[in-house]
Amino acid sequence: MSETQSDFLIQLNTVLSAEQLEQRAEVLLENSRDFGQFVGDPIMPLAVVYPRTVEDVQKVMRLAYEHRMPVVSRGAGTGVSGGVHVTGKCIVLNLMQMNRIVEVRPEDEVAVVEPGVINYDLNVAVSEHGLMYAPDPASYKMSTIGGNIATNAGGLRCAKYGVTRESVLAVDVVLSDGRLVHLGRNTFKGVAGYDLTGLFTGSEGTLGVVVRAVLRLRYLPVDERDISMLFPSLEAAVLGVQRIARARVQPAILELLDLPTIEILDDQYSTNYAAHGGAMLLVRVDGYGAEKEEAVLRETFENQEVTLSDSGADEATTLIEMRRTSRGDTKDDAYRMGEDIAVPKSKMSDYVRELRQIAYSHEVDVRVIAHAGDGNLHPTFSVEPGAGVDPLARLSKALEGSIRLAIEMGGTITGEHGVGLIKRDWLSWEQTADVLLLQQEIKALFDPRNILNPGKAL
Amino acid sequence: MSETQSDFLIQLNTVLSAEQLEQRAEVLLENSRDFGQFVGDPIMPLAVVYPRTVEDVQKVMRLAYEHRMPVVSRGAGTGVSGGVHVTGKCIVLNLMQMNRIVEVRPEDEVAVVEPGVINYDLNVAVSEHGLMYAPDPASYKMSTIGGNIATNAGGLRCAKYGVTRESVLAVDVVLSDGRLVHLGRNTFKGVAGYDLTGLFTGSEGTLGVVVRAVLRLRYLPVDERDISMLFPSLEAAVLGVQRIARARVQPAILELLDLPTIEILDDQYSTNYAAHGGAMLLVRVDGYGAEKEEAVLRETFENQEVTLSDSGADEATTLIEMRRTSRGDTKDDAYRMGEDIAVPKSKMSDYVRELRQIAYSHEVDVRVIAHAGDGNLHPTFSVEPGAGVDPLARLSKALEGSIRLAIEMGGTITGEHGVGLIKRDWLSWEQTADVLLLQQEIKALFDPRNILNPGKAL
Repeated sequence: MSETQSDFLIQLNTVLSAEQLEQRAEVLLENSRDFGQFVGDPIMPLAVVYPRTVEDVQKVMRLAYEHRMPVVSRGAGTGVSGGVHVTGKCIVLNLMQMNRIVEVRPEDEVAVVEPGVINYDLNVAVSEHGLMYAPDPASYKMSTIGGNIATNAGGLRCAKYGVTRESVLAVDVVLSDGRLVHLGRNTFKGVAGYDLTGLFTGSEGTLGVVVRAVLRLRYLPVDERDISMLFPSLEAAVLGVQRIARARVQPAILELLDLPTIEILDDQYSTNYAAHGGAMLLVRVDGYGAEKEEAVLRETFENQEVTLSDSGADEATTLIEMRRTSRGDTKDDAYRMGEDIAVPKSKMSDYVRELRQIAYSHEVDVRVIAHAGDGNLHPTFSVEPGAGVDPLARLSKALEGSIRLAIEMGGTITGEHGVGLIKRDWLSWEQTADVLLLQQEIKALFDPRNILNPGKAL
Repeated sequence: MSETQSDFLIQLNTVLSAEQLEQRAEVLLENSRDFGQFVGDPIMPLAVVYPRTVEDVQKVMRLAYEHRMPVVSRGAGTGVSGGVHVTGKCIVLNLMQMNRIVEVRPEDEVAVVEPGVINYDLNVAVSEHGLMYAPDPASYKMSTIGGNIATNAGGLRCAKYGVTRESVLAVDVVLSDGRLVHLGRNTFKGVAGYDLTGLFTGSEGTLGVVVRAVLRLRYLPVDERDISMLFPSLEAAVLGVQRIARARVQPAILELLDLPTIEILDDQYSTNYAAHGGAMLLVRVDGYGAEKEEAVLRETFENQEVTLSDSGADEATTLIEMRRTSRGDTKDDAYRMGEDIAVPKSKMSDYVRELRQIAYSHEVDVRVIAHAGDGNLHPTFSVEPGAGVDPLARLSKALEGSIRLAIEMGGTITGEHGVGLIKRDWLSWEQTADVLLLQQEIKALFDPRNILNPGKAL
């Protein structure tokens, strides 16, 4: 450790209590990465800092700014793009102890929270008021609101209720030099000045540290109806998505599962869906219109080659929970790479067909689940370690092909997971040099010493 | 005219056709301001330029950049915050001739438009596909999508469907130096890089010129049901808003009209509502849940002191149209100042009570209409020119009091109209010096020569 580094740590010690500054190996390791792939050995941060107050964060940032010490802010680390991977000398600012729900204001339909609040805990707290916090990434039982804001997280029900950005009204942010600013507003509408709240939402910890957020809540639906639809093929299921749209029904949840995914669920839950179909849609309609919407959907698929779950049965609800809690990762030793592209809705069918072609030509397996209502697809490529020549290279080629295909079809490299570390190289495939430069300039404006999660997101 | 100015105009002439460059007095006058108040004589631009293509805009901006010539971009000029008022030497870039609906992709639920497309025309074009462009400012029959994006316009039905920002997926922007950049994405979801599309939405022409936009469309509701509710008092009507929320009904439209507003409508349309009540709510529920929601609302207000329009009658629909097309401005000679604050929903009742107190203490009249579902209130103060000592000063004092009150209650100085020219001084009441500085730095980054609508929005 260099002299300036130990000087920095000594000073950190003077502004924080002893248990807020961790240097034990197992804590460093735990905080060295997120759920995203990491090639090579993990890199340890110099220390992990656990702020408890906004002032703690300010003190840490002031010192980090002064010492030009990189800071990786993180919550639960459930991200899958390497957004909080440690890549060099830095400290980790772990916000999990700032986990108070500061205020729930049911009449305003608003909650004020610290960044370490778990998405699920917030939903439990507001549900007693008949309210919900809508964005529900698959990780919602573990992931934090701060992390959700950092990645502008999506989720299952954002087809109807919007992504994180649509639910964040205001954020308190500690800037790189330790100044605290309040961005946004406490009201549903407001257009005073530039939308800096939106700029921070999805900025992956590169512009400042969100230490508090004002969130818009939605009405907990008075009725929810789940339908599973088992189609003979993936193509038929994608056509089913279009039929639902043409019926002008806006589901709260509209998930697409292909056959390999169904097989994994069958395997994990001892069900037997794969024997009866080739792809599945899981549909939830909710609110006062749920009953009618269910009727319209059942009518739409009458006399079609599709098996619908019975009305009122638990079957589809159980399947949605199965899908939520499992990304279908089996316990075998296959190499595996998952993705998160989005395409215009009309392109889903072509995308899936060409995706399979790509997997076939590189001799790797692929399976797909999708937030089909948003055109957001999560393909997972896999290959057995011993299969053929250089399986990892083939896997990478297939993955690369799937990303380029999404861009060719007018889509994006990341629908909801964020760029993080892993997708940085692809960003220039999607965005021009001018656009990348503008973002780097904004980064430099907010973080002139490049200490906020450097090397991520851009 | 200085030598550089005439040199600039001569060069403009070489890159545009003759009819694209206007210097006739009446055209200059028409383009010198928007619907917002302007004190003193109008200031004329040097010229009004009518681009027809993206390349035209690029040529104009390249020249303007080179000559450091301020450029005020505008559409129909229906804004009410002076966002396109001419305040000094400049040219006006009038985008009304770039009015093509480039593409409607019904399967993608997306439209691609030029900035001069009228909001209403877009809605007509997409309605044949069973779709709508949701944000509907009261000016929607005249105002352009470009202007709507510049102000992040709200409207009546954004309580349910969100403001302009929620419907803009991507924008093509000509930067101050003439470079063209594509920001955003063609998909519903996407988190690649910072949200520059959101940054541009609501930036009032100060960061670049939006020359094309990709818009998300929504399903045209299968059912719409309108109910008017006549309450004995404004307080009762505000409580009515809370009752609707507690019934967990999310109206598409929820407008509040106070007694003076009702009197003006009575006067304009020869109705007689004021004789029977003190305030009115106009409610629209829509979609598959409309029937049930109507039933729930009727049950909620059963045995209450409120008169509901009959189910299925045109009455409430007519009233909504009356409210849309009239901000209640009578033809008398009174001085009049309208505002656009927003407060947390629970504060509406207190706000309205104290607002009347402010008007009373300054001896001016006030009336209020509100997008009550969003807590967005439009008070209008007025006073007769001959009434008492310095009526204009009293009007300003009352207005100022209403703005400060909104901020004290955790609200904002502008819910949907934008800061423009008129609200600039108030911005520092709402936002700290640090936040204002960040925005000025962003402005300087995008517009280093300060030629894009200088002196506005910030």
